[in-house]
Amino acid sequence: MADPVACIGAGLVGRAWALVFATAGRRVRIFDERRETAEAALAFAAEMLPALADEDLLGKAAPAEVLGRLEVAGSLEAALEGADHVQESTPEDLQVKRAVFARLDAAAAPGATLASSTSALLPSSFTEDLPGRARCLVVHPINPPYLIRAAEVVPAPWTDAAVIERTARLLRASGMAPIVMTRELDGFVMNRMQGALLEEAFRLVADGYATIEDVDVGIREGLALRWSIMGPFETIDLNAPGGVRDYAIRYQRIYERLFPSMQRRVDWTGPVMDTIEADRRLRLPEAELPARAKWRDLRLMAFAAFKRRAARDIGE
Amino acid sequence: MADPVACIGAGLVGRAWALVFATAGRRVRIFDERRETAEAALAFAAEMLPALADEDLLGKAAPAEVLGRLEVAGSLEAALEGADHVQESTPEDLQVKRAVFARLDAAAAPGATLASSTSALLPSSFTEDLPGRARCLVVHPINPPYLIRAAEVVPAPWTDAAVIERTARLLRASGMAPIVMTRELDGFVMNRMQGALLEEAFRLVADGYATIEDVDVGIREGLALRWSIMGPFETIDLNAPGGVRDYAIRYQRIYERLFPSMQRRVDWTGPVMDTIEADRRLRLPEAELPARAKWRDLRLMAFAAFKRRAARDIGE
Repeated sequence: MADPVACIGAGLVGRAWALVFATAGRRVRIFDERRETAEAALAFAAEMLPALADEDLLGKAAPAEVLGRLEVAGSLEAALEGADHVQESTPEDLQVKRAVFARLDAAAAPGATLASSTSALLPSSFTEDLPGRARCLVVHPINPPYLIRAAEVVPAPWTDAAVIERTARLLRASGMAPIVMTRELDGFVMNRMQGALLEEAFRLVADGYATIEDVDVGIREGLALRWSIMGPFETIDLNAPGGVRDYAIRYQRIYERLFPSMQRRVDWTGPVMDTIEADRRLRLPEAELPARAKWRDLRLMAFAAFKRRAARDIGE
Repeated sequence: MADPVACIGAGLVGRAWALVFATAGRRVRIFDERRETAEAALAFAAEMLPALADEDLLGKAAPAEVLGRLEVAGSLEAALEGADHVQESTPEDLQVKRAVFARLDAAAAPGATLASSTSALLPSSFTEDLPGRARCLVVHPINPPYLIRAAEVVPAPWTDAAVIERTARLLRASGMAPIVMTRELDGFVMNRMQGALLEEAFRLVADGYATIEDVDVGIREGLALRWSIMGPFETIDLNAPGGVRDYAIRYQRIYERLFPSMQRRVDWTGPVMDTIEADRRLRLPEAELPARAKWRDLRLMAFAAFKRRAARDIGE
């Protein structure tokens, strides 16, 4: 039987990771400073597993079988016992990460990988002084990872190449799609692309060219359909008769012309936010945000199942 | 019976528009300077309609019934006869558009809307001197519009408000999701957002942080899943407990920090293209581009059908 995986921190991100590894057949030990948070992660798994089974997202396993792979550990050290991969998902605070990684490095088995789920901190910023820094890196998912496959693998300058490779292999074996960066960079890959798009979206609304619903429609009923099947590079590769170079030769001048007008940031919390918030709250009152987040997760689950079927029936 | 729609120009975009309007129950007259191109649009419809019916995308109509609504016109003037909406999809060339719009304005019924499918030209650039310029505007789809619903409605400074409104209504009645811009802007909404994202994607690859497959995975298996359900603004509205303002307050500083490093363009046709093209051609030889485009359209069709089901079953 494979070694267990340790999930340290069991909030929204940690509990979703626990579900990912358990669904992939691994035993998972969950530890959280607040024991009730760890227990809540089990309750969350118990709630989501039947829905995942209904969407045929559990493979051959029954929900109870997957649930049986999850256990709450009484201490951080007990969670780490024999684990070959440690996925840390504690609060996004540099001092917290430094303290947690020092404890992890001291207590984890020598061969264990220490991975942080951080979205905003570079791995070098909290692992530099650790004796075992060569086994540390970032594995950043998109929330919730049990429904969205992409995860960024971001090494520090001192991360061992074998650790990077082993981590990518573990992720693939767990049904994830790793993005392996060659070296660390602020924002990694996904937040940089999200940021570039959001900056333009805020500019369009601030300048009064379009409403937030116009922007959302343009992505939701437009660009994201192609992107969710192909990604941006394959999209443009198929959008000119001669492929991606032909596309760049034909259309770069259009984008080049737009670039100068994209050199200005709009303050997201400035006057434009009054417009945006009023518009959003008209469409969705604040009290309904939690219910809408549930709707989102149901849609994401159905989408994950559909994507798997389409890849199988039509090809990937 | 409703007035017919005229589709002028029957290439990839024009033939798809013809299918959109016919599927929505309208009679459609197709004209192309090359009669065989107009005939090919009928053949294309005949080929795609059974597949659309299989995916339950035709409503209650049989493929033959929809096909019967399409006819090839012998002349531009014959196509325009009695049409209340003219959708122009001729080559992307300013002189061509000017000449075609002069002919359309001279021959179309007084109450007809004259809409161009152009992606790169502002409506003011080819309608200014027309007596009927108030009825001219851009309606720019994402290819292919019979599978992707978003379409940009872009008025010139002189476009009549009633024409804009009537066009948006026609699009909605035809199953499309109009993005109504308040005024014209280079790149409209969608190409601006696509451009912002692509610039960052090219930078990441040029600087060696990630491969094109990493970027494609980050979007295809990551960001685009949420975006295709919610769009970018609803995504961030649901990504902080207090909604979109809370998100901006919590996370703007992350994006702010990334912005200065996004002020540099990479030449898409420069050295980075050698890397990108080599990588793409390794994944997909040039000879297989047309077959892959067919695969894309099958995936898009299945996706359009799934999206409709999910909206109905889980909610929109």
